[in-house]
Amino acid sequence: MPAPTLVQALSAIRPVDLERMAAVQARLDRQTKPRGSLGRLEEFARRYVAITGREDIRRKEIYTFAGDHGVAEEGVSAFPREVTPQMVYNFLAGGAGVNALARHAGAEVRVVDMGVDHDFGAQPGLIARKIAPGTANFRRGPAMTRAQALAAVETGIALADAAADAGVDLLGTGDMGIANTTPSAAIAALFSGLPVAQVTHRGTGIDDAALRHKIAVIEEGLRVNQPNPQDPLDVLAKVGGFEIGGIAGLVLGCAARSLPVVVDGFISTAGALIACELHPQVREYVFAAHRSVEVGHAVLLERMAQQPILDLHMRLGEGTGAALAMSLIEAALRGLREIQTFDEAGVSRGRDQ
Amino acid sequence: MPAPTLVQALSAIRPVDLERMAAVQARLDRQTKPRGSLGRLEEFARRYVAITGREDIRRKEIYTFAGDHGVAEEGVSAFPREVTPQMVYNFLAGGAGVNALARHAGAEVRVVDMGVDHDFGAQPGLIARKIAPGTANFRRGPAMTRAQALAAVETGIALADAAADAGVDLLGTGDMGIANTTPSAAIAALFSGLPVAQVTHRGTGIDDAALRHKIAVIEEGLRVNQPNPQDPLDVLAKVGGFEIGGIAGLVLGCAARSLPVVVDGFISTAGALIACELHPQVREYVFAAHRSVEVGHAVLLERMAQQPILDLHMRLGEGTGAALAMSLIEAALRGLREIQTFDEAGVSRGRDQ
Repeated sequence: MPAPTLVQALSAIRPVDLERMAAVQARLDRQTKPRGSLGRLEEFARRYVAITGREDIRRKEIYTFAGDHGVAEEGVSAFPREVTPQMVYNFLAGGAGVNALARHAGAEVRVVDMGVDHDFGAQPGLIARKIAPGTANFRRGPAMTRAQALAAVETGIALADAAADAGVDLLGTGDMGIANTTPSAAIAALFSGLPVAQVTHRGTGIDDAALRHKIAVIEEGLRVNQPNPQDPLDVLAKVGGFEIGGIAGLVLGCAARSLPVVVDGFISTAGALIACELHPQVREYVFAAHRSVEVGHAVLLERMAQQPILDLHMRLGEGTGAALAMSLIEAALRGLREIQTFDEAGVSRGRDQ
Repeated sequence: MPAPTLVQALSAIRPVDLERMAAVQARLDRQTKPRGSLGRLEEFARRYVAITGREDIRRKEIYTFAGDHGVAEEGVSAFPREVTPQMVYNFLAGGAGVNALARHAGAEVRVVDMGVDHDFGAQPGLIARKIAPGTANFRRGPAMTRAQALAAVETGIALADAAADAGVDLLGTGDMGIANTTPSAAIAALFSGLPVAQVTHRGTGIDDAALRHKIAVIEEGLRVNQPNPQDPLDVLAKVGGFEIGGIAGLVLGCAARSLPVVVDGFISTAGALIACELHPQVREYVFAAHRSVEVGHAVLLERMAQQPILDLHMRLGEGTGAALAMSLIEAALRGLREIQTFDEAGVSRGRDQ
């Protein structure tokens, strides 16, 4: 079967199964522990089972989407643009942060070229889905055409669809793209209605002057492009990025195929928010991995009504937070499967049990 | 060699190696990521290596200390007292929360009877170190004698010492003891100087009236016993518990043998605080696993200058939080060992690198 279009994927999204959720909680409440005492682990177990109908995880995959950004020419990042392809090679060689943490979590990293300004040729392991060699500089005009935005989203949908067919039970998102906190901050400002200065931060590590410049660039980009927050594809096209579109599609595709997806940090959440703005029930399939140091991240999470799983002051992206959070979801399922009930273990109940 | 006495263990504690810590950070700063972008993972890696001199973990063990409490007869818990031995059997059978989460983390659970009011006979797997079958009710007088408090602490020290000899690289603490949030709240009130009502909470799930009663019982216990916060053994003896003493000893013994120890939730932190009050450098060996729902926990953590690793609204104890946090320390070490440097990966540096 061909991969679903955006319209087909949107039509396929259903609310998660509340009866299944209640059944899981009923079992958790019979287990040998005070009710609710595993806190958010119980929420993870409940939600995972409600989404998938399964109580374990067979395969975990993290999709690290890479793309370049025309706005990088404005000097908004501490790193030069050639780092995007260099890091793609590093991912493929297994030497980056996401590779190390994914190995710890037992997850596979899949690297997707959504729009890196570099010719990788036939590169083993690389999922080649280049829309174009980088976006245009959104300070001057749209980052991409609406057709390119749609293509980026449908690429992500197709990857989620294929993962579902291959028996993957838990997906994670990740990003690589020099300057990509700039479009992410633009997206945060647009959907929240907050001033750009309140959602823009230092990215990989710029100083005060560069931060003021970054804010001015985003403000100008929003003024020039006038993206319409009622039309999430318009936002993606005008101030987004190819990797952000891929992430939006993957998250949306997961919801369409009843797969839980662990959304990494600031850039991934910007992509996930576009998916959630396209369909409000997408958020039921999302696990927010962690709270990034980037100030705009909290704004995105709030808009999606998500509580992050971890808060370790990370700001690396790539899917590093997703890798860590996956392991906690897996731990929650262990608890669900393996903790004995009061009856099984012959333990007396408390007053509330 | 016989296990160290408390005095010997105290004399053996040294500050952790700051040069080693700086060397680890220097390597982290050469890795292909913005400086500091792995946030607290970098702290975990730095501290683990500084403590142990190793960059990996061979063996992880969680010590779950069990004891009964005379103060349970005051009705301060939602669960009946027989649950303490029932849960010990559950731990030994592998059916409790800590067993499930420790299996996920690849850690072994070791169950220590420090003072359960039950005759276990010769029970395979149980580490039998019963000081007495439960403490006395501290509302009426001291929970234990000073000699018993010392014996409990030295039991924990001996276990840490043996673990060090056996090549365990990371230890965790856990607790089981019906009513043991009551002595823990007493300890929190004493060392913080805060009113009992500010550090006392619902434990396994008592209602408002029972909470008011629990506060009154603790207040009376402190008035009757007048524990001296300048003398941590006096505090342990008068309002503590045998499992809390075992935890204090394990934590102190870890510091004496240069072993990192992951301290679980409220009860474990009460034990760890006694160790830290006995020697201020103990805290350098402690990783605080998580922030418990128990309100007094934050007070204990602050007194020890600890930032918890996780905040998942848990309140189960047993070592469940320690199991989860161990895995994050292990992930941090993966990052340290496996992320390539800029030179190794041929990636361009940023402005600050």
